[in-house]
Amino acid sequence: APIKGCIIIRPYGYAIWEEIQRVVNAKISAMGAKNVAFPTLVPYSFIAREKDHVDGFAPEVVVVTHAGGKKLEETYIVRPTSETLIHDAFGRWIRSWRDLPIRVNQWCSVIRWEKKPKAFIRTGEFWWQEGHTAHETSKEAYEQAYEARALYREYITNYLKIPVICGEKPSIERFAGAVATYTLEAMMRDGKALQMGTSHVLNQSFAHAFSIQFQNKTGGLDFVHLTSWGVTTRLIGAAIMVHGDQDGLVLPFDVAPIQFIIIPITKAKDSDAADAVNKRCHELMIMLKKYGYRVEIDTNDEETPGFKFNKWELKGVPFRIELGARDIEKNVFVLCARDTKEKKIIEWNLFSQEFIEHVTQEYGDRLFNKAQKRMEENTKEVDLLSNIISNADSDDDEAVQKNKTATNNYFWKTSWCCAEETYPEFKKRFLTVRCILENEKACDVCCIHGKECENKHNLKKYHGTRQERSQCSKNKKKYT
Amino acid sequence: APIKGCIIIRPYGYAIWEEIQRVVNAKISAMGAKNVAFPTLVPYSFIAREKDHVDGFAPEVVVVTHAGGKKLEETYIVRPTSETLIHDAFGRWIRSWRDLPIRVNQWCSVIRWEKKPKAFIRTGEFWWQEGHTAHETSKEAYEQAYEARALYREYITNYLKIPVICGEKPSIERFAGAVATYTLEAMMRDGKALQMGTSHVLNQSFAHAFSIQFQNKTGGLDFVHLTSWGVTTRLIGAAIMVHGDQDGLVLPFDVAPIQFIIIPITKAKDSDAADAVNKRCHELMIMLKKYGYRVEIDTNDEETPGFKFNKWELKGVPFRIELGARDIEKNVFVLCARDTKEKKIIEWNLFSQEFIEHVTQEYGDRLFNKAQKRMEENTKEVDLLSNIISNADSDDDEAVQKNKTATNNYFWKTSWCCAEETYPEFKKRFLTVRCILENEKACDVCCIHGKECENKHNLKKYHGTRQERSQCSKNKKKYT
Repeated sequence: APIKGCIIIRPYGYAIWEEIQRVVNAKISAMGAKNVAFPTLVPYSFIAREKDHVDGFAPEVVVVTHAGGKKLEETYIVRPTSETLIHDAFGRWIRSWRDLPIRVNQWCSVIRWEKKPKAFIRTGEFWWQEGHTAHETSKEAYEQAYEARALYREYITNYLKIPVICGEKPSIERFAGAVATYTLEAMMRDGKALQMGTSHVLNQSFAHAFSIQFQNKTGGLDFVHLTSWGVTTRLIGAAIMVHGDQDGLVLPFDVAPIQFIIIPITKAKDSDAADAVNKRCHELMIMLKKYGYRVEIDTNDEETPGFKFNKWELKGVPFRIELGARDIEKNVFVLCARDTKEKKIIEWNLFSQEFIEHVTQEYGDRLFNKAQKRMEENTKEVDLLSNIISNADSDDDEAVQKNKTATNNYFWKTSWCCAEETYPEFKKRFLTVRCILENEKACDVCCIHGKECENKHNLKKYHGTRQERSQCSKNKKKYT
Repeated sequence: APIKGCIIIRPYGYAIWEEIQRVVNAKISAMGAKNVAFPTLVPYSFIAREKDHVDGFAPEVVVVTHAGGKKLEETYIVRPTSETLIHDAFGRWIRSWRDLPIRVNQWCSVIRWEKKPKAFIRTGEFWWQEGHTAHETSKEAYEQAYEARALYREYITNYLKIPVICGEKPSIERFAGAVATYTLEAMMRDGKALQMGTSHVLNQSFAHAFSIQFQNKTGGLDFVHLTSWGVTTRLIGAAIMVHGDQDGLVLPFDVAPIQFIIIPITKAKDSDAADAVNKRCHELMIMLKKYGYRVEIDTNDEETPGFKFNKWELKGVPFRIELGARDIEKNVFVLCARDTKEKKIIEWNLFSQEFIEHVTQEYGDRLFNKAQKRMEENTKEVDLLSNIISNADSDDDEAVQKNKTATNNYFWKTSWCCAEETYPEFKKRFLTVRCILENEKACDVCCIHGKECENKHNLKKYHGTRQERSQCSKNKKKYT
């Protein structure tokens, strides 16, 4: 788009997003959240109320100063996220424990000024869903945040066919103002990690900042416990970067705007044979549509079949059907899956709905398994980082670059003591801690300093007491 | 919302908008438009390219000057509408007549700083769909604009049960930059008019400003012909203001978030009788849900049935079902329609899907007919405006107010010569020309000046030649 760092999503791309929205929205609704619409503009004073939040977002907000030809009395920003606006409303809506839990969800776009934009991955504006909930107890808030992440995991795994690693972000990688950020991390084709979605338990300070109090069951006043969670148009980018190959996209079947593309193989465009082929293709399209699939015939007379094959491969259509005059005689057609490019001759009368479901299931399994295998092959365990990098303290460009190259295209599974003081410098030079794995044993010897960990931070421990969490949250402020 | 002139749409209201979106989106898709997403920010230089457009929108735009902590090199506005961004893209996407027609549609919100906000009717931000198309010929563009209006008419009439008058806006009431604006006008409960949607044929100057040229079938270069059209969350406001009564909303059945509310009539909350009633209510809910209706039971133990009746009437739920212990014995329940408040005793075994369809159809017909009758009764014909107002030239406040009161709560059907010079002053004092009716005879004697019209402007004449239209467009610039 002619706006710095922003993109236009054209019909083919937007159809993918609509398919994602349709299914994720139904799941969110089943989880009890109701859709709402909040304003695009947020008073600057709102985001300033929660200290971590404003520290986190101030560098990337877009500021509105004038409206209706006049300078505004109050400065607004274009929402980078809607926590503050929604919490302000919660403060007015919530009176008693009977009003809780409250769960709202919004499909919209947000703007975060982006210095290094990349289409569908990091853009100045992106489209997303943001869920916001308020609960009576801390426990319920943690459960809600987990449930949202479980929802995303189920969708990303089963529909986008992308394997993910779930865990918690270390405190300094958390959302600005969260006490816990749960994440789903996927490995792209190049071995790099991409965060697929996040789910946060927010600091009580939000409830304090916006006076979100409720009368509890014993008549006293308590502050609510808040969560927020979201997935974005980045999911489209992830599907492209995980499944694509050198010939273009390879779209997961469920989100493909066109699931079957039918190419009539004809030589002379006005011959009787061409008419018969086109008629047969049309019959096939109608049958597939009747089964509920998205299907098109490419009837363009000015392109050769070969040109069309490439064109639709580039667009990642899962299945191509080729049908020529001789195929009609034999009562067959050619079915070619986008990922393997293997051509199979299919007998017309065997092409039942059951058969198609089987073929599409296999296609999805292949996509998932290929991505899973890649991730497994590129995940390495390491005890001491000094085993894989050298001169960690050197400022020499060449040394830094060499270490980055050696480490950046893998997932490293290791033990870390969560000693945050040493991390920012380390991250800048080599690796980001993507997530702290759940249900793993406590770390033994820290991969950075090689000593036994004082904190014994595994996730269970990490989550153990609220005191510990609040400690992590305080430490955080040093670095942001 | 805590933003000047803006609203928050809460779950109950947003569910109405989602229902509107679902059906209108399917109709727009069937018309051949594909959904897209364009950025929220528009370079100010873009809206300045079409003179009428910038003149029309400059007073109400919201301006972004800073991003990422720095002053921006280019000033952006938050979109008041997306014509310019989309035309810029059309200029890049369209090469040949084969690319035409192109039809895109976007569901989003837009911001127009509003001095006199009114919830759902005029708000600083509102949600809408905006369709944008490009065509080879002027004729096709006019047909597209008509088709979009026909789509809106069908939806508003059949789903929202609101009768509308269709026509064309006089030139000085047109969208900023249009050569024709088609409109749908409805009468609210207070006799006032509300514009329900518009569809525009745009001035060729947009195509020139954004260099949207295509190679035509004979190899030459032509500029495209553009249209745009939209309906907004104002439709919710219209449904409230047309059908509502002194007890609250009366929602059209198709868009009601809750179509049936079931109220168990119980006295003691833990008695066996109450259990039986609740069980029976549950059976009824399951049956209605199976038929595809949106239904809820109000099981709140702390409110009386009477309180609940009022609560759900306020929310406009089309049908209330009351069911008590004695009703179970008799195998009946009470059905009460929101509009008439008549209670009918329904035998359980007669409550088939067919019966429900009949009842809801009658409900919709009553809503439509009541609104239609009101509009007819409050539409008057007048030859000379001097018959209904006096002292038209007086600046005396009392005289002006008296004339406004006498005229403002009616539709007046009359002849007008479209002499635009006299109109702005007239509009300020008394009446707005809402639309020029189609298929009416040419005007004879002008209602304002009482003379035979020189222009003989009826709509056919008005649309007769492009030269005439361009003349109207030129005149317009004098007044905006």
